[in-house]
Amino acid sequence: QSNSDLIRATLFPGDGIGPEIAESVRQIFKVAEVPIEWEEHYVGTDIDPRTNSFLTWESLESVRRNKVGLKGPMATPIGKGHRSLNLTLRKELNLYANVRPCYSLPGYKTRYDDVNLITIRENTEGEYSGLEHQVVRGVVESLKIITRQASLRVAEYAFHYAKTHGRERVSAIHKANIMQKTDGLFLKCCREVAEKYPEIKYEEVVIDNCCMMLVKNPALFDVLVMPNLYGDIISDLCAGLIGGLGLTPSCNIGEGGIALAEAVHGSAPDIAGKNLANPTALLLSSVSMLRHLELHDKADRIQDAILKTIAEGKYRTGDLGGTATTTEFTNAICDHL
Amino acid sequence: QSNSDLIRATLFPGDGIGPEIAESVRQIFKVAEVPIEWEEHYVGTDIDPRTNSFLTWESLESVRRNKVGLKGPMATPIGKGHRSLNLTLRKELNLYANVRPCYSLPGYKTRYDDVNLITIRENTEGEYSGLEHQVVRGVVESLKIITRQASLRVAEYAFHYAKTHGRERVSAIHKANIMQKTDGLFLKCCREVAEKYPEIKYEEVVIDNCCMMLVKNPALFDVLVMPNLYGDIISDLCAGLIGGLGLTPSCNIGEGGIALAEAVHGSAPDIAGKNLANPTALLLSSVSMLRHLELHDKADRIQDAILKTIAEGKYRTGDLGGTATTTEFTNAICDHL
Ligand SMILES: CC(C)[C@H](C(=O)O)[C@@H](O)C(=O)O
Ligand SMILES: CC(C)[C@H](C(=O)O)[C@@H](O)C(=O)O
Repeated sequence: QSNSDLIRATLFPGDGIGPEIAESVRQIFKVAEVPIEWEEHYVGTDIDPRTNSFLTWESLESVRRNKVGLKGPMATPIGKGHRSLNLTLRKELNLYANVRPCYSLPGYKTRYDDVNLITIRENTEGEYSGLEHQVVRGVVESLKIITRQASLRVAEYAFHYAKTHGRERVSAIHKANIMQKTDGLFLKCCREVAEKYPEIKYEEVVIDNCCMMLVKNPALFDVLVMPNLYGDIISDLCAGLIGGLGLTPSCNIGEGGIALAEAVHGSAPDIAGKNLANPTALLLSSVSMLRHLELHDKADRIQDAILKTIAEGKYRTGDLGGTATTTEFTNAICDHL
Repeated sequence: QSNSDLIRATLFPGDGIGPEIAESVRQIFKVAEVPIEWEEHYVGTDIDPRTNSFLTWESLESVRRNKVGLKGPMATPIGKGHRSLNLTLRKELNLYANVRPCYSLPGYKTRYDDVNLITIRENTEGEYSGLEHQVVRGVVESLKIITRQASLRVAEYAFHYAKTHGRERVSAIHKANIMQKTDGLFLKCCREVAEKYPEIKYEEVVIDNCCMMLVKNPALFDVLVMPNLYGDIISDLCAGLIGGLGLTPSCNIGEGGIALAEAVHGSAPDIAGKNLANPTALLLSSVSMLRHLELHDKADRIQDAILKTIAEGKYRTGDLGGTATTTEFTNAICDHL
C-alpha cells in the first residue's frame, strides 16, 4: 500500500492506561491492514514542563485537518479553574453530537441480554453552559441553555443516523413537563426534523419514565436523542446494562464532518502501565471511527474479532473477571482476524 | 375506641383509579384497626363546575391542620397555563423532601433481588424553579436554583432519616464537576450536615456514575440524597429495578412536620372504575404515613400482609401478570391481617 492511499487520523492516547489501550488499537489496525496512518499527539495532564500545556494548538489542528481521530481517557487537571479536557475538546472542535452505541455482548453475561440501542447526546450546550453565579449569599443558579440551532443539528444527526444505520425509531428524551421552554424547544426541533423522515418512527419520552423503562425493558428503545445532561446520564445507565464503560464505544461528531471517537471510561491510574487494562471501549470506538470513514469491511472484521474473543471467554481482562493481560487479549483478537 | 383517640388524616383519592385504590386503603385500615379518621377532599381534574377549581383552600387547610395525609394520583389539568397539581401541592405545602423507599418484593421476580434503598429528593427548587425565558429567538434558558437553606434542610432530613431508620450510609448524588456552583453548594451543605452525624458514612457520587452503578449493583446503595431533578430520575430508575411505580411508596415531608404520602404512578384512566387497579403503591405509601406517625405496629402488620399477598402470588392484579381484581387483592391482604 502506498502512503498516498493512507487516511491520516489523529491519535490522542491520553493519560493512565491510555497509551496501553492505544497500542492495542495500533496493533489490531496493523494486523487488519486498516489503511490508516496515525498522527499521534499528547493531550493530558502529564504535561511537558517546557510547554506547560495540557492541550496544544497542534493537537487541535491535527483533528481539524484530518477530520478524524481517536482519543483515550484524559484525567481532569487538578486545581482550580481548569476545565475538563474532554469538555475543552468538545468546545474547541464544536463536537455537537455524541453517539454511543450500546449492545449486549454475546457471551458476557449481565442481567440484560437484549440491549441494542444508540444514545445520541447534544454535546455543546444545555446544563453544560458553564454559566453559573451566586445571586445572593446562599442562593446560586446555573443556566441551562437550549438553542434552536444546536437542537436541530443534533436531531438531524439522529434521524440521519437512524436512516443510514437501518434503525426504525427515534425517541426524544426530555422533561418538557417541567422545563417547558428549554426542553420544549428541543422537542419542537425534533418534531420538525421528524417530519422530514416519515420512514422513521418518532416518539417523545420523559426522562424519568425513560430510565424506568430502560431498566425494565431496554429492548423497547432503538435510537435516543436528548439534551446534554440527559445524554450523560442515560448513556452511562445504558453502559451499566451491558457491563460498564469499559465495553461501550463513543464517537463525537463535529461541524465540517469531524469525528473524534473516544473511550469514555477513566484513565485508571491504579492499573496504568501494568498491562492489565481492557482496551475494548477504545477498540470499539476505533470501529465507530472506521464506520464513520465508511470502511465497513474493516470495521466488521475487527468488531467480529473483538466480540468473538470476549464471547469465547478464554482471554478476558480483570475487569471482566478474567486474568488476561492487555497483550494477551489483544493477541487473541489478532488471532481472530 | 372513642373518637378522641383518632388521628385525623387528610385523604385525596385523586383522579382515575384514585378512588378505587383509596377505598382499598380505607378497608385495610379498618380491618387493621388503625386509629385514623379520614378527612376526604377532592383534588383533581374532574372539577366541580360550580367552584371551577382543581384544588380548594379547604383541601390545603386540611393537610395543614392534620399535618398528615395521603394522596392518590392526580391528572395534570389540560390546557395552557395550568401547573401540575403535584407541583402545586409541593409548593403550597412547602413539601421540601420527597422520600421514596425502594426494595425488592419477595416473590415478585425482576432482574434484581437485592434492592433496598431510599431516595431522598429535594422537592422545592433546582431545575423545578419554573424560571425560564427566551433570550432571543431560538435561544431559551432555564434557571436551576440551589439554596443553602433548602440544601441543608433536605440533607438534615436525609441524615436524620438514616440515623432513625438504622441505615448506615448517605450518598449525595450530584454533577458538581459540571455545575460547580449549584451542585457544589448542595454538596457543601451535605458535608456540613454529615459532620454532625459521624456514625453515618457519607460519600459523593456523580449522577451518571450513580446510574451506572445502580443498574449494575443496586446493593451498593443505602440512602441517597440529591437535588430535585436527579431525584426525579433516580427514584424512577430505582422503581424500575423492582417492578415499577405501581409498587413503590412515596412520602413528602413539609415544614412544620407535615407528611403527605402519595402514590406516584399515573391515574390510569384506561382502567379507571373497572376494579383492575393495583393499590400497592398507595398502600405502601399509607404504611410510610403510619411510620411517620410512629404507629409502627400497625405499619408492620399492614406491610407484612401486603408483602405476603404479593409473595404468595395467588392474588395479583393485571400489571403484575395476575388476574385478581382490586377487591380480591385487597381482601387477600385483609385475610393476612
Ligand atoms: C468527565 C465528564 C465531564 C463527562 C461529562 O459529564 O460529559 C463524562 O461524564 C462523559 O460522559 O463524557
Ligand atoms: C408529574 C411530574 C411533574 C413529577 C415530577 O417531575 O416531579 C413526577 O415525575 C414525580 O416524580 O412526582
